[in-house]
Amino acid sequence: MKATFRLVIDCPDQVGLVAAVSQFLAALNASIIEASHHTDVHLKRFFMRHEIDADSLNISQDEFTQTFAELAKKYEMTWSFSSSQAKPRVALLASKEAHCLNDVLHRWHTGELNCDIPCIISNHDAMRKYAQWHQIPFYLIDFTNKIEAFRQIRELLIEHQIDLTVLARFMQIIPDEMCAELTGKLINIHHSFLPSFVGAKPYQQAYDRGVKLIGATCHYVTSVLDEGPIIEQEVMRISHSDSSEDMVRKGKRCEINALANGLRYHLEDRVIICQNKTIVFN
Amino acid sequence: MKATFRLVIDCPDQVGLVAAVSQFLAALNASIIEASHHTDVHLKRFFMRHEIDADSLNISQDEFTQTFAELAKKYEMTWSFSSSQAKPRVALLASKEAHCLNDVLHRWHTGELNCDIPCIISNHDAMRKYAQWHQIPFYLIDFTNKIEAFRQIRELLIEHQIDLTVLARFMQIIPDEMCAELTGKLINIHHSFLPSFVGAKPYQQAYDRGVKLIGATCHYVTSVLDEGPIIEQEVMRISHSDSSEDMVRKGKRCEINALANGLRYHLEDRVIICQNKTIVFN
Amino acid sequence: MKATFRLVIDCPDQVGLVAAVSQFLAALNASIIEASHHTDVHLKRFFMRHEIDADSLNISQDEFTQTFAELAKKYEMTWSFSSSQAKPRVALLASKEAHCLNDVLHRWHTGELNCDIPCIISNHDAMRKYAQWHQIPFYLIDFTNKIEAFRQIRELLIEHQIDLTVLARFMQIIPDEMCAELTGKLINIHHSFLPSFVGAKPYQQAYDRGVKLIGATCHYVTSVLDEGPIIEQEVMRISHSDSSEDMVRKGKRCEINALANGLRYHLEDRVIICQNKTIVFN
Amino acid sequence: MKATFRLVIDCPDQVGLVAAVSQFLAALNASIIEASHHTDVHLKRFFMRHEIDADSLNISQDEFTQTFAELAKKYEMTWSFSSSQAKPRVALLASKEAHCLNDVLHRWHTGELNCDIPCIISNHDAMRKYAQWHQIPFYLIDFTNKIEAFRQIRELLIEHQIDLTVLARFMQIIPDEMCAELTGKLINIHHSFLPSFVGAKPYQQAYDRGVKLIGATCHYVTSVLDEGPIIEQEVMRISHSDSSEDMVRKGKRCEINALANGLRYHLEDRVIICQNKTIVFN
Repeated sequence: MKATFRLVIDCPDQVGLVAAVSQFLAALNASIIEASHHTDVHLKRFFMRHEIDADSLNISQDEFTQTFAELAKKYEMTWSFSSSQAKPRVALLASKEAHCLNDVLHRWHTGELNCDIPCIISNHDAMRKYAQWHQIPFYLIDFTNKIEAFRQIRELLIEHQIDLTVLARFMQIIPDEMCAELTGKLINIHHSFLPSFVGAKPYQQAYDRGVKLIGATCHYVTSVLDEGPIIEQEVMRISHSDSSEDMVRKGKRCEINALANGLRYHLEDRVIICQNKTIVFN
Repeated sequence: MKATFRLVIDCPDQVGLVAAVSQFLAALNASIIEASHHTDVHLKRFFMRHEIDADSLNISQDEFTQTFAELAKKYEMTWSFSSSQAKPRVALLASKEAHCLNDVLHRWHTGELNCDIPCIISNHDAMRKYAQWHQIPFYLIDFTNKIEAFRQIRELLIEHQIDLTVLARFMQIIPDEMCAELTGKLINIHHSFLPSFVGAKPYQQAYDRGVKLIGATCHYVTSVLDEGPIIEQEVMRISHSDSSEDMVRKGKRCEINALANGLRYHLEDRVIICQNKTIVFN
Repeated sequence: MKATFRLVIDCPDQVGLVAAVSQFLAALNASIIEASHHTDVHLKRFFMRHEIDADSLNISQDEFTQTFAELAKKYEMTWSFSSSQAKPRVALLASKEAHCLNDVLHRWHTGELNCDIPCIISNHDAMRKYAQWHQIPFYLIDFTNKIEAFRQIRELLIEHQIDLTVLARFMQIIPDEMCAELTGKLINIHHSFLPSFVGAKPYQQAYDRGVKLIGATCHYVTSVLDEGPIIEQEVMRISHSDSSEDMVRKGKRCEINALANGLRYHLEDRVIICQNKTIVFN
Repeated sequence: MKATFRLVIDCPDQVGLVAAVSQFLAALNASIIEASHHTDVHLKRFFMRHEIDADSLNISQDEFTQTFAELAKKYEMTWSFSSSQAKPRVALLASKEAHCLNDVLHRWHTGELNCDIPCIISNHDAMRKYAQWHQIPFYLIDFTNKIEAFRQIRELLIEHQIDLTVLARFMQIIPDEMCAELTGKLINIHHSFLPSFVGAKPYQQAYDRGVKLIGATCHYVTSVLDEGPIIEQEVMRISHSDSSEDMVRKGKRCEINALANGLRYHLEDRVIICQNKTIVFN
């Protein structure tokens, strides 16, 4: 994989914006590999992502950051400029179901996910073996006292300098203050097609309602349960002959795929959160 | 199309049921073209549909009905035995959006839907031309007085001896007593993936929530809005770049396809309603 | 629908290209509604499409065209600058199957497709009624003499100043010289997932091979049968219980949707042909 | 999981067949959990699968087999009667790509696949760790001499009493005599939507052709490369912006899902091979 820089911009819309940015980039000899734009006409905001060949740039990442800051200020940009070689540090949390954990670990192991995984945290010892296979530190948290449990988790995230926390089928509700603290840095996979079937046992809810498709949703976590900005969704067809157990089994592939895509988009700086929605440049 | 009979059975589950029915059919020389079974293990109910080559049977439809009644009684069956040559009479109701109406009419016109369409009813004159193209009586109903409007619709359904009423994007809420009267004989297409986005302007709701897939649901109408038994659902992928107007345009194909499938399944006696769900032998 | 201009560019890739174009646009006060880029790293070519609010521009379309030509020359661009208000003139050709014709006509009738349809041409009189419903001139062509038939079709296309010819299930092979003459202006819908099942009776071929999915392909026509640049493809699941007749019926929705999308992409200048492939900015 | 028996029948079609079988089952008090039928009208053959609650049967599996043989003979049936508790012995063969191997192993590890996996065979040592994680014997085969390599593989299959051999991205062409020997017992996952892109590097072929969807096919292996009976296929949408490397990455989910489904169908006796096609009772 070629080293790249990713310039991600979110600012008020105005004529000349693209010209200013692309002139800036051209002056630095930036070879643009991928460029994506989006204008939200209701909010009058402009979103832009450039992926730039790192070798083409005639200044360093630090110099770029300093120089660009001026332009960014002029256009009131919220922005980031990151290198594909700086691997985000990702913590994985899981409870009993291992399919999402296994899939994320396998993709990471084979180099598909560009991140480090410094720790796996669970409230069930059954997840330990997955951590061991991949030689990743494993932390078993006792949830008898939930407040204490989350205090420990918070400490682990700080200790391991975690950039992104992934709830890979972690069946505990995250406290509001932790949601607030990790805004935009906490991803969940919910096993339904949101906003259908919020909360517990969504496959049973789906069975009871008699829907003909089931799904999964990868989203950022906010303090309102299953209501955060959606990154990715997957669905699949079922029929009257599927029991709720069949749905649990079949739905796993939706969960795995929605999480894998959502996670990759986040790690590649392809997601911009705007209010309660996302722009995903995929 | 070969003439067929459709034997549809819904009864308490017990050993010997299939044997009894298939023996009965074999004794009449019935050549079975298609057979489908389903057992609901929670409800301990059994559902069965046979499609039989009409020419193979050595007795008439009436004789079959009389003879089978005895067996049906023994096994406490709810059942029907219908001929593919008896065309159900279908009324189409639509408001302003013509895509579902146009699609159903085209499928009917080309012989794909096995039914008669004795009338099209609307609260907008814009639908008249579709009726005229197909030389079907058109009734424009004034909705200034809703009670009077539905009285007129009810009369039209009776007058035209309607077997099935299809709400092909009819944007008026059906009164409870009419829902009750037409139980299992009133089909709606709702432009969302239910139970998400019940009620008005579902595409706007979808836009506001930021979902990554939109859908449509074909369902039987009950007195609780958008909560009736689901027959068919369709979804398609969208992105942040789709406005709610884009969703309206793109979603039409979901609506068209879900309605077309749902309607065909109903007309071919493939749907059994069981509590608030459906068994669909497709 | 807001009036827009579409600037579509295809040229050798180089640093500064986007800057030059976006500076040019900013100087004319162009408000960019949609911008899409693609770099083909193997071919070292760059593709770009801008959709611009027509009202925002401070010069006329003609002036733009004249001024831009200089920039275009410098960067060796193949380019076009068109108005959303100039409706392309589309000829529809169909044989016996009406579903694609009906769908395109309905989308056109309801304003979804931004084009004029000056004529419908067929080798079967059964298509006449669709033309009549929409008050479009209909031409029945006798195919006893194929050379003469295509001579007549060619004349009709010239006479009606046709910009785009759509084979909406037209079951005659287009002569090589006509393919050449209409390069990039002749769209076909083939009822298989190409490159599977080229040529006649693709559903029968699919049945015989025992595939579990069927599909349809919308593509530009070239002199090699079913080998032209693909614009859009659709598939759907089938099973062993589907006869080839079932596939014919079910596959229609793939054909309709692939053609509808492909046609809209073309009419909105979203498709760039590059060798035997397409870039589709959708 | 409840213990069940699966009665699978393939025979000439005739009236009375279902009656005879269901009478036979009812006399043994068989409680039928799932029943599926299919008639091939062209071949005049009938296919049937019953899944029976093992506890409900009033005779043993052996007694059933002996008794049923008489009925089977009368109706010229090819048939099997197997227990869900007899785990088939599956050998996994893989080369360099681990995603299919990892997925199958995870499903097996979590009890989703009802089989034993006595050995993993590869021509690359990189697969060893997956075997080790799951404590399954691993055999590295040297392919310098292909004839000798396949002789060793054949011996391993015999030694481990293998019922089913799965090529989970095994990039060596199986010799004809081995294909013949393992007819109906050798499953492959091919990384294209067959019959498109047979043979080597299908993603590169897909890239070169410019298709808009990629896929994968799970099929039985016969001596003609990629031409055996298809069990399951999966597709996903791609665009002009996907390189062949992107397709390789994205397509993995199609491969994983098609193989997982195909393998499960086979293990649950849901697949009947009929000439070069399959009936899949799923």
